Amino acid sequence: MGSAATASPPPPPSGNLTQDELKRVAAHRAVEFVEPGMTLGLGTGSTAGHALDRLGDLLRAGALPGVAGVPTSLKTEAHAARVGIPLLPLEDAASASGAGGIRLSIDGADEVDPDLNLVKGRGGSLLREKMVEGAGDRFVVIVDESKLVPRLGCTGAVPVEVIPFGAPHTLGLIRKVFDGVLGFHARLRTVPAPKGDGLDAPFLTDNGNYIVEMFFEDGIRGDLRDISDRLLRITGVVEHGMFLGMATTVIVANKDGTVTVINKK
Amino acid sequence: MGSAATASPPPPPSGNLTQDELKRVAAHRAVEFVEPGMTLGLGTGSTAGHALDRLGDLLRAGALPGVAGVPTSLKTEAHAARVGIPLLPLEDAASASGAGGIRLSIDGADEVDPDLNLVKGRGGSLLREKMVEGAGDRFVVIVDESKLVPRLGCTGAVPVEVIPFGAPHTLGLIRKVFDGVLGFHARLRTVPAPKGDGLDAPFLTDNGNYIVEMFFEDGIRGDLRDISDRLLRITGVVEHGMFLGMATTVIVANKDGTVTVINKK
Repeated sequence: MGSAATASPPPPPSGNLTQDELKRVAAHRAVEFVEPGMTLGLGTGSTAGHALDRLGDLLRAGALPGVAGVPTSLKTEAHAARVGIPLLPLEDAASASGAGGIRLSIDGADEVDPDLNLVKGRGGSLLREKMVEGAGDRFVVIVDESKLVPRLGCTGAVPVEVIPFGAPHTLGLIRKVFDGVLGFHARLRTVPAPKGDGLDAPFLTDNGNYIVEMFFEDGIRGDLRDISDRLLRITGVVEHGMFLGMATTVIVANKDGTVTVINKK
Repeated sequence: MGSAATASPPPPPSGNLTQDELKRVAAHRAVEFVEPGMTLGLGTGSTAGHALDRLGDLLRAGALPGVAGVPTSLKTEAHAARVGIPLLPLEDAASASGAGGIRLSIDGADEVDPDLNLVKGRGGSLLREKMVEGAGDRFVVIVDESKLVPRLGCTGAVPVEVIPFGAPHTLGLIRKVFDGVLGFHARLRTVPAPKGDGLDAPFLTDNGNYIVEMFFEDGIRGDLRDISDRLLRITGVVEHGMFLGMATTVIVANKDGTVTVINKK
């Protein structure tokens, strides 16, 4: 596999790498887990994009016959098609259980805690990512070391996908879950309106839903599974960006260009 | 209130009522709970439709000044507008907590169990119904006695709203929740394709989602709240049609035209 001619540039050999180079280092290492014939879950985002490029190179070089992928977003679907990765819909890949199912998913993450719980979906694709990555046997997460956190929610938003109908009401119910939590706040994610009239419009997911962003002053404290259940019980909440107990391996690219592989206990 | 001139026909006085007449009997009784100035949750379906007609009559007669409604479906929105009920979006009604919130919701149900748990949504509007009816202080359910069941799921489908992406995969995960339950089956709800080419198309909810219908040979046995959590934890499941602990009053129209009012213990 390592001898295949590649179009994607190899990682530079020494220190002082940019964050994007670190992402590529981790992504290339993850792709080493891919074997001929595997069906893969294909993640979304800049780090996952490096894995797609690497997979495309290896496929074109003939190093990975029979590999196909299930994309986790419309963006990844387009990227994978561009680099020549054959695609399958989730139901076709996952329904064939055993050897035919999704063997391995590769994706980035916004945060990784010491138990390998993740925050994902700041890019907006959390639902499809969770469906695909939850359907596979193994889930390899690729990050640079800035993503390692002591607690989820330390470095930015924890997204929650909600139904557009009554979204401000749903936002209120989400706030109630964290009633009394110092420094907690939540808001509907918006984007500048396409008309350019100065008004913001709600961000739309691939599924036509909205995103509520939850912010914590010093991360989420408490039983994450209990918090997950309380969010999922809110009518109007579709899914949230905490991926609990799903990652089986985390590949961390360190600032000096070395790689740390952490396996689930 | 009872002296107002009405356009909707009054319930006939004696026995041998049709099912539709029984629905009207229950609906009219429920509307007696409505007081001037109240904001109401307006249900969806044939029984709720009788309540809308009655409300419209009373509003036109000037008997219920200041009453407004939050519709639970696009169909109810149109019906309420037609009979002259002023409408509010959920977020406007519910955000004004206390006196300004939704005081009372009125809706039918597909099934009512002895603990006043409900199956709703065979008409396809479960998500908006659950959001609106869960946001109110009081929820009055109107049924004819054929809807009283010993266990939920005895008389037909229990619907589950799912995201279209990967829906066959989600259906498989729902089946796993009831693995080994004798006589359980589940399927995607379909409607004849509009093109008339003989192929069925998935039924679409007001939110653009699909519906999975779950069938039980003799009703759902086990802890309903636990089953609810297991369904809601499935990525791809948006909401289900079990309304647990939500009804505060159930008004039952009996075959002989009498009415039984059951209040939550």
